[in-house]
Amino acid sequence: MAAENDFVKDITKKSVDFSAWYVDVVKKAELADYSPMKGMMVIRPYGYEIWELIRDQLDRMFKESGHRNAYFPLFIPESFLQKEAEHVEGFAPEVAWVTVGGGEVLEERLAVRPTSEAIICSMYSKWVKSWRDLPILYNQWANVVRWEKVTRLFLRTTEFLWQEGHTVHATAEEAEEETLRMLATYRTLAEDYLAIPVVTGRKSDSEKFAGAVRTYAIEMLMPDGKALQAGTSHNLGQNFAKAFNIRYESKEQKLEYAWQTSWGATTRLVGALVMTHGDDSGLILPPRVAPIQAVIVPISAGNWKETVLPQAQKVFSDLKAAGIRVFLDDRDAYTPGWKYADWEMRGVPVRVEIGPKDIDKQQAVLVSRLDRKKSFVPWDKLAEELKRLLEKIQGDLYAKALAFRDASTHELGTFAELKEAMAGGRGFIRCGWCGGADCEAKVKSEAAATIRVILDKPEPAAKACAVCGKDAPHTVLFAKSY
Amino acid sequence: MAAENDFVKDITKKSVDFSAWYVDVVKKAELADYSPMKGMMVIRPYGYEIWELIRDQLDRMFKESGHRNAYFPLFIPESFLQKEAEHVEGFAPEVAWVTVGGGEVLEERLAVRPTSEAIICSMYSKWVKSWRDLPILYNQWANVVRWEKVTRLFLRTTEFLWQEGHTVHATAEEAEEETLRMLATYRTLAEDYLAIPVVTGRKSDSEKFAGAVRTYAIEMLMPDGKALQAGTSHNLGQNFAKAFNIRYESKEQKLEYAWQTSWGATTRLVGALVMTHGDDSGLILPPRVAPIQAVIVPISAGNWKETVLPQAQKVFSDLKAAGIRVFLDDRDAYTPGWKYADWEMRGVPVRVEIGPKDIDKQQAVLVSRLDRKKSFVPWDKLAEELKRLLEKIQGDLYAKALAFRDASTHELGTFAELKEAMAGGRGFIRCGWCGGADCEAKVKSEAAATIRVILDKPEPAAKACAVCGKDAPHTVLFAKSY
Repeated sequence: MAAENDFVKDITKKSVDFSAWYVDVVKKAELADYSPMKGMMVIRPYGYEIWELIRDQLDRMFKESGHRNAYFPLFIPESFLQKEAEHVEGFAPEVAWVTVGGGEVLEERLAVRPTSEAIICSMYSKWVKSWRDLPILYNQWANVVRWEKVTRLFLRTTEFLWQEGHTVHATAEEAEEETLRMLATYRTLAEDYLAIPVVTGRKSDSEKFAGAVRTYAIEMLMPDGKALQAGTSHNLGQNFAKAFNIRYESKEQKLEYAWQTSWGATTRLVGALVMTHGDDSGLILPPRVAPIQAVIVPISAGNWKETVLPQAQKVFSDLKAAGIRVFLDDRDAYTPGWKYADWEMRGVPVRVEIGPKDIDKQQAVLVSRLDRKKSFVPWDKLAEELKRLLEKIQGDLYAKALAFRDASTHELGTFAELKEAMAGGRGFIRCGWCGGADCEAKVKSEAAATIRVILDKPEPAAKACAVCGKDAPHTVLFAKSY
Repeated sequence: MAAENDFVKDITKKSVDFSAWYVDVVKKAELADYSPMKGMMVIRPYGYEIWELIRDQLDRMFKESGHRNAYFPLFIPESFLQKEAEHVEGFAPEVAWVTVGGGEVLEERLAVRPTSEAIICSMYSKWVKSWRDLPILYNQWANVVRWEKVTRLFLRTTEFLWQEGHTVHATAEEAEEETLRMLATYRTLAEDYLAIPVVTGRKSDSEKFAGAVRTYAIEMLMPDGKALQAGTSHNLGQNFAKAFNIRYESKEQKLEYAWQTSWGATTRLVGALVMTHGDDSGLILPPRVAPIQAVIVPISAGNWKETVLPQAQKVFSDLKAAGIRVFLDDRDAYTPGWKYADWEMRGVPVRVEIGPKDIDKQQAVLVSRLDRKKSFVPWDKLAEELKRLLEKIQGDLYAKALAFRDASTHELGTFAELKEAMAGGRGFIRCGWCGGADCEAKVKSEAAATIRVILDKPEPAAKACAVCGKDAPHTVLFAKSY
């Protein structure tokens, strides 16, 4: 265990070195740790509990919209991966290959799934026969492996946890509708639960999913001015249906290729939470995804075990019964001051202090992790007040992130301005784009920025391409990205 | 989609060919399907929903007893697997090896985890420092791969889903206590939720987990007289602590090796459910793990959409609000008779029929999947009566399985009797065992049976070893096993 306050001492300041701060917080708050294998992380219980809350919320939303979970094999035969040409080209370089099993060299290499279209589509071709079988709305919670050169805890790891939805539809319209419905689901998760505002839109051809007709994404802006792609939803058209022969008999008794979508979100979201909301004292968790929403710290002085502790225990039971995720820190070996700093570092939204004076006054002290403001609340109003404060913190975190995002989104008209922004404070650069791959490539090579999304509606402001100056049918957001 | 009743027609009778019946039920009820890779299965939504219910119940019990979930990497470097001698000897022959990643041949092969002791212990050696860090009570929900020669859907597959608990303790006593606590948790799951009685006890040395000091198991008896190991709990002693250097500073400031346990249960449990409770008409699910506890079938005749359907919808809402997992089958394309057979095949415990006559009488008809007995229940008592019936079915299924298990457990004194039993109706053979590996091996080679468990307390009946006739300190259960 750490000596007094060394956890805070050991955290690099967020404003001084953002990257070092991020790693410090993830490790000191015990969200994750490096494993012995390069690029693979261990998700520790506190980090996993955040993921469980995110997962459960997404899972609820998936099920409410008619989706069902299933589980498909971890391994994909090489020949299956090769069936869709763009798909294999996109993923083959990142694959981990199993070549030996049960002591024998395999006749065909097996890919550890980097994504599961190839194996799932092979099953769909067997299951889909009639229009009555459609739509198929399946989702899978799974681990996937992509051999990454540069990795960062949660943000880019060789193995990660995710969900991947895979749906099959009778018409192109239904597939597009589903693609956009799931994009909206990701937006809801990000904004209403993670308290992170997102921009949604379509990807350019160079950034879309390998094998998709259209990819949509939710994009977040991190405090260092870099964009984070936090969820993607793909309209696969009939590409995989043709490669895997997924056909159904229509009501008119004609054999038709089906239309498909796939969509995914990953443990990267935990990293997004850390970066967006944390401060120099460590993590700050939005209450809706905080494993511990409130920590009760009894003030250990004098005969506290006879006086303060029983009341702290009662408050614990009451708050728990009120549906709040609460923890009572009654450890003997640590001082209240040590505990305050420790739980602040771990991002618990509210601290509940109870000391001898509070016993006399029949009150407790609520302290917000956001601004450390104290409020003194009578015992009988505690659950109600705490819930109100948690909702306030949830809202304040979102508002703060939104204000930053808006202040960091710039309307820029020329390539010089764009380059200058990327060399400085970065952020989202909103500008016109002619649609040409050359202009896009030029921005990538000279400003290290990519099109994060093509915005849904071209805006009046965007009249000319920021790169070539020609007519711009698209308004896009450029940014450096994770 | 299937033509009328062909799903029942296509199911082999359970009494005629148990193995064929099992595969038919798993496939026709859409619990799982074969994948293109030998030995790897796809868990379809209905099967996965059963697994979710099992998983959620286990997860609740783990958390209530202080365990926390974490996630460790899928891959284990070969050198880590080799650190514990018995462990590598036991698992190396079954490993799938990753040898190529990101287009390059790896310097060291990576095992796709067959179990995670080696990777988890390497992290524990880093995290455990003081007695204050103990106990560590972690669990992981994950997929594992073991290259199996003979596979069967759910029962033995190359990849399977499971949970693996991994705990660290300061003393031998605490580790043994934890080992037995988790064994008891598995018993509760099996008996109270899956409605399957189990025998618990210790494994002989030849059957214990590779690297454990002691392995305990819950064993079930299947209708074909074969035993199914359905959950194991291992006391690892200090074997892994010494191999991976997991040491802590005691209160007396001495450096001590820690004591460990591990324990697991798998998707095999879904197979156990199918085998134990199903009949010639298909699956029968115990209500507590049934994704659909009751299916409402409106009788579609005449103007049913104006009369029967609205009431069926109201019943659906009422039952759902009462916390029952209910489904309304209002599909147009199928007759009520077709639906009855379809849902019976899928093992839904209770069918709720509502027809024109029932509208007049303000009642619904409840039909139990177990014995097809009908009861006519007024609308206002439906939820209450249905809950009672579901509990009754849960209890009846357990009683039936227990009666079979007891009737199939035989006290036998000689090796000839044991061999005869194994050649016939099989079952559990309770007898004395001298403790000799030779006697155990003789039973395995000549009667194809193994010691499933050494019973907790030697019973008076067991005076002599059934094989060699010498004094028998142990009473054991022999059986053929899956």
